[in-house]
Amino acid sequence: MAVYTDVSFEDLEAFLQSYDIGTPHVFKGIAEGVSNSNYTLQTEKGAYILTLYERRVREEDLPFYLDLMEHLARAGLACPTPVHAAGGALTGMLNGRPAAILTFLDGVSLRRPGPEHCAAAGRALAVLHQLGASFGRTRENSLGLAGWRKLAADCAGDADKAGHGFGDLIETEIAHLSQCWPENLPRGIIHADFFPDNVLFVDNKVSGVIDFYFACTDFLVYDIAIALNAWCFEKDGSFNVTKSRALIAGYQSSRSLGPEERSALPVLSRGAALRFLLTRTYDWLNHDPGALVRPKAPGEFAQRLRFHRGVRSPDAYGL
Amino acid sequence: MAVYTDVSFEDLEAFLQSYDIGTPHVFKGIAEGVSNSNYTLQTEKGAYILTLYERRVREEDLPFYLDLMEHLARAGLACPTPVHAAGGALTGMLNGRPAAILTFLDGVSLRRPGPEHCAAAGRALAVLHQLGASFGRTRENSLGLAGWRKLAADCAGDADKAGHGFGDLIETEIAHLSQCWPENLPRGIIHADFFPDNVLFVDNKVSGVIDFYFACTDFLVYDIAIALNAWCFEKDGSFNVTKSRALIAGYQSSRSLGPEERSALPVLSRGAALRFLLTRTYDWLNHDPGALVRPKAPGEFAQRLRFHRGVRSPDAYGL
Repeated sequence: MAVYTDVSFEDLEAFLQSYDIGTPHVFKGIAEGVSNSNYTLQTEKGAYILTLYERRVREEDLPFYLDLMEHLARAGLACPTPVHAAGGALTGMLNGRPAAILTFLDGVSLRRPGPEHCAAAGRALAVLHQLGASFGRTRENSLGLAGWRKLAADCAGDADKAGHGFGDLIETEIAHLSQCWPENLPRGIIHADFFPDNVLFVDNKVSGVIDFYFACTDFLVYDIAIALNAWCFEKDGSFNVTKSRALIAGYQSSRSLGPEERSALPVLSRGAALRFLLTRTYDWLNHDPGALVRPKAPGEFAQRLRFHRGVRSPDAYGL
Repeated sequence: MAVYTDVSFEDLEAFLQSYDIGTPHVFKGIAEGVSNSNYTLQTEKGAYILTLYERRVREEDLPFYLDLMEHLARAGLACPTPVHAAGGALTGMLNGRPAAILTFLDGVSLRRPGPEHCAAAGRALAVLHQLGASFGRTRENSLGLAGWRKLAADCAGDADKAGHGFGDLIETEIAHLSQCWPENLPRGIIHADFFPDNVLFVDNKVSGVIDFYFACTDFLVYDIAIALNAWCFEKDGSFNVTKSRALIAGYQSSRSLGPEERSALPVLSRGAALRFLLTRTYDWLNHDPGALVRPKAPGEFAQRLRFHRGVRSPDAYGL
């Protein structure tokens, strides 16, 4: 929750010379996202988000993310769509960072989604997968097995500083997943960060999906595994199978899972928990104390990983 | 620029039970203000700001600030007006902090206001003073001479850590101002923090004045002295007398300064510079490195104070 790159109104005015979106009436930094700087921007023509991409997002990946959002929005998913500058560009440089203007979506993120919200989120995820099928472009998941091995190596020796037993947990888990990670499951565009933060609601209905900056090509059911980790654990660490059942049923109301996808869910859920355990451990160990953002504690994903390790069949998820 | 107290959508929903403003469609923390936590809130009924008052604002002063804003807004000043809860209260408790909902004003703060903006700001300040006259309540300026002496004592011995020679500068200035601070000038409600941050513009016209959390009763012309410090110095430290002339002329287009007010401007400008030098020095020395906000550097107000020390007559300000 931070604004990393400061943008004055005068900087904005200069940047907007290339856009045909009118005169700014509101322009405020918002405490949203941990990777980018975001500003809310309103003109007489509409409401927008100005995003400055900070170091974490690779500049060469921006066209993929932005084109994907444009594709999905045109296809009917409620998601931000980038505004073209005169000349067609989707990004420009602003105060030394690549920047884009996207349409603003109404809606609020829930901190404690209930089963009905999980069902709605599951439906939205299936729609995203179906509409992504016609995108026609791919991006490798840089946070797949190879990426996990690299993160684990970067944290090696220090992981226990982030939490008791993390070093062992990470090492044994990577060894296990390297053995049994599936190879042939339906693939396509996945959101890859489908957390409650990134799903907006108005009146208990999904009004939008945001933050596509981890989107990539991977097993579709892996996105469900991420969502189960993100939506279905309670604050006390317990797994809420009612929410899980609702999320999966919501998903299947639009897209049915095949038998291989169902049986892969436990191992994919372990992988998803490991992925967030690894990135949060890395961020915890490499946190700049001068930065205006506090890293998220990795412990809850260690706990979730341990839960999935105890799962013997997809039934545990309400399938 | 920070959100100190985290408010989830669910916390907000519970808080809004006492209000008749509809269902939230947008709710985002904004990077605005250094003393309070602010959220932008939109419902089907309108746009609002939710403010949580942090430790810096004394709870017992809130009724003064909020009633003042309500009075000024009703009288015709474009400023936020607090929304009454059912039962009439202007504040409630939210996550352990007093909180209020205020109407949202369109407009952007300028980082580099030009002379025409200074003129418009001066006009708005005079209107604020005139409309404040019928408020009928008073609040002592806790950041007047007595407050400065207390801050100086709190920083004593350490002030030089905030900047070279600050200890001497502060001590000699307080001694001087104690001798020659005026006693009989027209008094009334002043904003007391009339910086470009707190004046909103749409299409180069003032669309609103915000942040009344230093408002108090003091010499009206002291508010101009604060505004000269806030609006008329360039980044390189030079004083822009064109902007100063424009600001004062804008002010006088609504309310003329009397001869005593004019001749007091140099000493009041020194006092205003000292006030911000002191609070910034104090914040610099007492900054919590774990806080998600960086203190503002006090140096520019030492430089401004030194400028005012060299002023021999109100002519220097374009009067």
